[in-house]
Amino acid sequence: MEHVREISEKIANMEIRGAGKIARSAADALGKYAAKLEAKSREDFIKKLEEAGNILINSRPTAVSLPNAVRFIIHRAKISKGDVEEVRKVAIKASREFIEKSEKAVEKIGEIGAKRIGDGDTLLTHCNSKAALSVIRHAWNQGKNIKVFATESRPRYQGHITVRELSGLGIPTTLIVDSAVRTFIRKVDKVIVGADSIAANGAVVNKIGTSQIALAAHESRVLFFVAAETYKFHPKTLIGELVKIEERPPNEVANPEDFPGVEIRNPAFDVTPPEYVDLIITEIGVFPPQAAFHIIREQFGWIIGK
Amino acid sequence: MEHVREISEKIANMEIRGAGKIARSAADALGKYAAKLEAKSREDFIKKLEEAGNILINSRPTAVSLPNAVRFIIHRAKISKGDVEEVRKVAIKASREFIEKSEKAVEKIGEIGAKRIGDGDTLLTHCNSKAALSVIRHAWNQGKNIKVFATESRPRYQGHITVRELSGLGIPTTLIVDSAVRTFIRKVDKVIVGADSIAANGAVVNKIGTSQIALAAHESRVLFFVAAETYKFHPKTLIGELVKIEERPPNEVANPEDFPGVEIRNPAFDVTPPEYVDLIITEIGVFPPQAAFHIIREQFGWIIGK
Amino acid sequence: MEHVREISEKIANMEIRGAGKIARSAADALGKYAAKLEAKSREDFIKKLEEAGNILINSRPTAVSLPNAVRFIIHRAKISKGDVEEVRKVAIKASREFIEKSEKAVEKIGEIGAKRIGDGDTLLTHCNSKAALSVIRHAWNQGKNIKVFATESRPRYQGHITVRELSGLGIPTTLIVDSAVRTFIRKVDKVIVGADSIAANGAVVNKIGTSQIALAAHESRVLFFVAAETYKFHPKTLIGELVKIEERPPNEVANPEDFPGVEIRNPAFDVTPPEYVDLIITEIGVFPPQAAFHIIREQFGWIIGK
Amino acid sequence: MEHVREISEKIANMEIRGAGKIARSAADALGKYAAKLEAKSREDFIKKLEEAGNILINSRPTAVSLPNAVRFIIHRAKISKGDVEEVRKVAIKASREFIEKSEKAVEKIGEIGAKRIGDGDTLLTHCNSKAALSVIRHAWNQGKNIKVFATESRPRYQGHITVRELSGLGIPTTLIVDSAVRTFIRKVDKVIVGADSIAANGAVVNKIGTSQIALAAHESRVLFFVAAETYKFHPKTLIGELVKIEERPPNEVANPEDFPGVEIRNPAFDVTPPEYVDLIITEIGVFPPQAAFHIIREQFGWIIGK
Amino acid sequence: MEHVREISEKIANMEIRGAGKIARSAADALGKYAAKLEAKSREDFIKKLEEAGNILINSRPTAVSLPNAVRFIIHRAKISKGDVEEVRKVAIKASREFIEKSEKAVEKIGEIGAKRIGDGDTLLTHCNSKAALSVIRHAWNQGKNIKVFATESRPRYQGHITVRELSGLGIPTTLIVDSAVRTFIRKVDKVIVGADSIAANGAVVNKIGTSQIALAAHESRVLFFVAAETYKFHPKTLIGELVKIEERPPNEVANPEDFPGVEIRNPAFDVTPPEYVDLIITEIGVFPPQAAFHIIREQFGWIIGK
Amino acid sequence: MEHVREISEKIANMEIRGAGKIARSAADALGKYAAKLEAKSREDFIKKLEEAGNILINSRPTAVSLPNAVRFIIHRAKISKGDVEEVRKVAIKASREFIEKSEKAVEKIGEIGAKRIGDGDTLLTHCNSKAALSVIRHAWNQGKNIKVFATESRPRYQGHITVRELSGLGIPTTLIVDSAVRTFIRKVDKVIVGADSIAANGAVVNKIGTSQIALAAHESRVLFFVAAETYKFHPKTLIGELVKIEERPPNEVANPEDFPGVEIRNPAFDVTPPEYVDLIITEIGVFPPQAAFHIIREQFGWIIGK
Repeated sequence: MEHVREISEKIANMEIRGAGKIARSAADALGKYAAKLEAKSREDFIKKLEEAGNILINSRPTAVSLPNAVRFIIHRAKISKGDVEEVRKVAIKASREFIEKSEKAVEKIGEIGAKRIGDGDTLLTHCNSKAALSVIRHAWNQGKNIKVFATESRPRYQGHITVRELSGLGIPTTLIVDSAVRTFIRKVDKVIVGADSIAANGAVVNKIGTSQIALAAHESRVLFFVAAETYKFHPKTLIGELVKIEERPPNEVANPEDFPGVEIRNPAFDVTPPEYVDLIITEIGVFPPQAAFHIIREQFGWIIGK
Repeated sequence: MEHVREISEKIANMEIRGAGKIARSAADALGKYAAKLEAKSREDFIKKLEEAGNILINSRPTAVSLPNAVRFIIHRAKISKGDVEEVRKVAIKASREFIEKSEKAVEKIGEIGAKRIGDGDTLLTHCNSKAALSVIRHAWNQGKNIKVFATESRPRYQGHITVRELSGLGIPTTLIVDSAVRTFIRKVDKVIVGADSIAANGAVVNKIGTSQIALAAHESRVLFFVAAETYKFHPKTLIGELVKIEERPPNEVANPEDFPGVEIRNPAFDVTPPEYVDLIITEIGVFPPQAAFHIIREQFGWIIGK
Repeated sequence: MEHVREISEKIANMEIRGAGKIARSAADALGKYAAKLEAKSREDFIKKLEEAGNILINSRPTAVSLPNAVRFIIHRAKISKGDVEEVRKVAIKASREFIEKSEKAVEKIGEIGAKRIGDGDTLLTHCNSKAALSVIRHAWNQGKNIKVFATESRPRYQGHITVRELSGLGIPTTLIVDSAVRTFIRKVDKVIVGADSIAANGAVVNKIGTSQIALAAHESRVLFFVAAETYKFHPKTLIGELVKIEERPPNEVANPEDFPGVEIRNPAFDVTPPEYVDLIITEIGVFPPQAAFHIIREQFGWIIGK
Repeated sequence: MEHVREISEKIANMEIRGAGKIARSAADALGKYAAKLEAKSREDFIKKLEEAGNILINSRPTAVSLPNAVRFIIHRAKISKGDVEEVRKVAIKASREFIEKSEKAVEKIGEIGAKRIGDGDTLLTHCNSKAALSVIRHAWNQGKNIKVFATESRPRYQGHITVRELSGLGIPTTLIVDSAVRTFIRKVDKVIVGADSIAANGAVVNKIGTSQIALAAHESRVLFFVAAETYKFHPKTLIGELVKIEERPPNEVANPEDFPGVEIRNPAFDVTPPEYVDLIITEIGVFPPQAAFHIIREQFGWIIGK
Repeated sequence: MEHVREISEKIANMEIRGAGKIARSAADALGKYAAKLEAKSREDFIKKLEEAGNILINSRPTAVSLPNAVRFIIHRAKISKGDVEEVRKVAIKASREFIEKSEKAVEKIGEIGAKRIGDGDTLLTHCNSKAALSVIRHAWNQGKNIKVFATESRPRYQGHITVRELSGLGIPTTLIVDSAVRTFIRKVDKVIVGADSIAANGAVVNKIGTSQIALAAHESRVLFFVAAETYKFHPKTLIGELVKIEERPPNEVANPEDFPGVEIRNPAFDVTPPEYVDLIITEIGVFPPQAAFHIIREQFGWIIGK
Repeated sequence: MEHVREISEKIANMEIRGAGKIARSAADALGKYAAKLEAKSREDFIKKLEEAGNILINSRPTAVSLPNAVRFIIHRAKISKGDVEEVRKVAIKASREFIEKSEKAVEKIGEIGAKRIGDGDTLLTHCNSKAALSVIRHAWNQGKNIKVFATESRPRYQGHITVRELSGLGIPTTLIVDSAVRTFIRKVDKVIVGADSIAANGAVVNKIGTSQIALAAHESRVLFFVAAETYKFHPKTLIGELVKIEERPPNEVANPEDFPGVEIRNPAFDVTPPEYVDLIITEIGVFPPQAAFHIIREQFGWIIGK
């Protein structure tokens, strides 16, 4: 249990960061806990596992990947058959499986998504998404002749990292301000972005500005793809919960002291409605956004009412 | 003629800047030229006036206000009746009339446009338009309880000037990044922006990002108003000419040296199609964008084929 | 002047009612005033005529037809040439012309509009518009085999009058509730409604519910026609003025005493945006809604800035 | 069997009314029948249970909840394993489960749906739906500061019941006529309505006028939620069957004798296409409308071709 | 008068064909008639001229160019001042002016329209329009690097003529079937087509299939241009008249004998609504479609009510 | 194995043609192979079956029905339990089941789809789809009074076959050119077409022109149905693969020798996006297009990542 608490603290104080890392650390901690857990019965085992899981989940209540990792393990434990030792094996195996899958997911998304990129395509991306860049990189490595527009992604300029990564690979890359998207979109064949979270109805929560790009793509009949690991799907949206949109400090936008009396608003994310999303590319395949509810149920054993 | 040449040079080397100033300086120079111009006949007078006008026009070929100022004077001269002295009077009067009208236009736009702002309205503006801010200021001065969202307007942050002006007047003002418009637009009652140029079919050329805002406003059934002096209407679009979109230096967006191998594109303006514009507010009244061709003909005597 | 005041009072206390009647009474009063008016000069004559006109206009500030009638006469007087007697004649003639035109307008609209109705067409109308019904009646009298859906038009059930009128003529007529429009609209070829007022940008102010019907028609690619006398065009919208939407007593909707604590809202009109209007049928021809600014200027001599 | 017949008759002659009550009575009758049913074998048991089920279903062929209740029980019986006594237990348990679930569904929908209502939200509802009102009530009871617009819902004025219920709870409530929805919709954050039936492709059958509201909400980017118990999903639509739209007596709209020669049409429901529905809120979670086929299959064991 | 009758007959029996030729022949005949016409007074002259004009107009009631030619001359005669000889001169001059203008119009349209074609543009055209091809040819002759997609234009394959013309000029040309437009439209920058007739509200009557292309262009935010001589504008639409859509013989589509019992429909034209048209290119400049009513009034003196 | 190779060759050289026939021949060959296959173990059996399956699949890599048939059998074999003889039985049974299902699918689609056709409906179809015509035929045979518009379907005129079939049944049928669809679509109640392939996100690949019809139907709120056997769903699209669009010889469009220098493009299919598809009618029921991923997984055992 100590290891579980330790990891929880590190997640809480942000020593462990990034959706993927957080999830894998929690899965690892829960697996190790299961390995040594003493229990009187199968039921007792599961109960204790859930207690440990809750500690981990509560260490960072807004990160979607965290409860998904915990739930992945506990769900498999619960639906297993047999005694304590049997359940233990299942839990340990599930822990390893989650970690491996998570590590491979970005690569897998790249492999799957690259099939949708044509030779000669011009792409556009926003912010700095590992999954989206994996798709672009795989397409490029397959010898496809592609070009990429990347937005600067105010206020934190993550687009600067993106253009460096892409041009570092040799991909012809163009940097534009966020508000120039509609000007260039007709030259674009496909938009590809990542996701911070995907809701049960297929709405995509991602970096502020994403929904405006989706709207402009839709207006010009440009395909809009979202690349996302399955643990980005938000299970609790299935029971109505809203994804909270983090509002970050105003000084990311401008120094408030320079603008006395002016309110500065800085929402970090926005919500792209499913009707503007053509495809979600995950490590287990591509889906229409309306399949989100199904993936959540299948992957995370989230059976409501139980 | 010397004064005309001098002013032309100052316009060319950007000593004289700003759509309004350029236009008024040219009108003044042409008026002064007319005052002293020696001519054998009415025809001779007009011919010489046109020569001087062309020198002024060519000093800055992309500024719409400049040919409009020149044409305003010469058109009135041409349709006048009578001898040299009669035409001279008309030209001088037209010169003064243009200058006065131009100076009063921003105020007049404010008066007219403010009637369309309701008590309790939330507005959104982009970049830093004198005409748009005049509308907002007039509405505020009439005691209307309004709030304003202003974008930062990358890459040159003209939105910073806007929020200082507005909050300096006491108006509750909120600064947001350009890509947050779609997030806040449902709280907005009316968008109001300026224009650099308006084409014969009602398309509005304005600061990059304007057309994305218009699109987002349209998606949410938010009214979209353009405030523009009539000399922003582009006469030559009536005979098919395209408004050139200036592309400015990349270093306004990012230091190219920091991004070797990355192309940086920096178009300064974009084009908002007439179907996303609800109203154009000018100093001579409000119009649907489709009335642009009519205003051009009426105001600038531009009768094609003659 | 006494007659002018008398008529003004009758308009104010609603002894004289209805857009057409109000306008004709005012025109008549002004014409009679002009006939006997003593003036020192042309200028003096016009000044006095304007004073009388203002008295009439102020008797009912929200009725569009009233200032249009007054302006029709005074504008013609002003642009006339010659001395007092000449202006007098013009004013008297204009008075008679307005009255005659107004009387004939509904018939003329019927003649013009009926050309747009095809044999076998199914129409839909809302509320009870004389102009719209004139179009339907003319089409029927020409032997066209038409059918009409009419809404009941809550809260005042003017649709009941409409269905009685139409079925009284022998036209196959179907009465439906307002909210059944979208269910039946695909069976409809053309919607035809009247207007209380038309703004400079082509927006149509008409009976509450009209804009919902226009939206449903647009969704199903059904043509949407507005039949309106030219004096329904609202000149002051050209200088930015908003058409005021009258909110009528709640008891037209429900007895407030039966619903303690419940707010009852009863706006009498709504605004249909020009993009949902295919054609405006007037007594001087058919126009796209975007021509409204032009008709206003041409018909009512409303030249702003002068 | 006698009890089954008795209940069937009461359903047929409308002694038992309301989607929920009908379904629960049938489930209860079938459970009681199963408890006493004598059967030679498992197969025989199921066959007799199906006969009884069919009698119940045929008592009111158009009510969706009725076959859903019967199928819920029989499906569970069929997929159970073991002998007659085992199947009997399953059938009895399923009967109780259905009744309980049905009773709790409205509450559960309220709990789940209230999570989607934000503090400060303005809502709009149509007709009088228990499920929709449960969502509103739960949100209010959580202390959320909400306001509600309710339509009168011609021709039967069910909106009057709604506003009484809501204002009785202390919720600020505004009553409007059906055709005023587009006027007020921009002030609304979310529309929430019930459903009479939901088809396999996500189309929502509900009170006449619902689809017009959905259209107006879509035009203004206002979220449109449908609250519905899962037994409102229509299984037979999965094999192509159309939901029949009941047309009710004309005198609900107007007294036909007052309108001789006028046809009065009174469809009770309309169909809202899935593209205008953002979310369906059920007692088992929230879904995009396109998930309807999946819920039907999962909940009612309706496997076509078998 | 004999010459007038002769020409009328040739138009009636289609010896004289083609919108341009018909119009010019009629203008010529009317000019010659005016040259020799004996009249007692100015009024008498105009009356006789109108009689001759009507004979010409009635020779082919559906051709728009014909009444436009006649009206062009008579309108100028009527607004002229002076005696019989003066009017005669005006009529003769107007006759010549119309003929010259008509002949030059296609070239002028090419000059004006070519300004809207960018270097590197891909265009798409439908059917075989002289005006549209003039725009393409001018752009090509200016050294612009353009490519053109042309539809085959069933049922009469006029697209075959178009691709021969274009590839004969050396322009890279691609032939596709009509139903492949949506597949290729995203590669297209601008669509440019001709018009058979343009109505007062800006609706464009052109070769069957045009409106489908306009719809597909609109869906992909591709600009849609119509190139049309001003005499294609249909004056009588201003007073409500509908443009008749000619239905041509079925055997253009397929041999009816090969399809016994099958109805074959062959409408030759369709109607593109103004909201899908970005620009109308005429010999007097470019306009939004909503300016059609204005051009009609200005060019053809069609002042209704007079 | 020899029979497998023989069938593979016949498929490769197109002796066996048509999506249905290909699939059934392959299923039959695989079943016969399974019947005689010698294997050391269950694993060995399945391995050999997969080898044979791959030979069949590779004989025509682009036909969707072929891998679906093979996978149908092998998937059932793999999920079966028991020894070699048990698996053999399962494989043989699956082979027969596939063949039977395939043969019955078109009939079943007709039965299911006909429920969605109303009495009095006007339908429109494109190309020549057995499944779509089955729906129309079933509706007609049920005594429904229907009318059908059919396009000629350039370049191969498959519409000619369609109108002969339909009018042969006595159904009132109208033949039109492909580009006349938008002209007639408002008279149409439902469009019904077939599919060559359906992707995981619900996009429908069908005869060139289909997507234009879907767009026109959507514009006029006309329902758009796709009739397709489940083996038309393309499993590999689930892992990102794109459906290849066959481009056929230019001489189907026009003789290239008659058009020297002209490129002729002839894509055989286009892609209709799911947002324009209201319903997919299969032999196992009707679905929204977004259910495609689900049907693929359920029917063809395609579980990615395994």
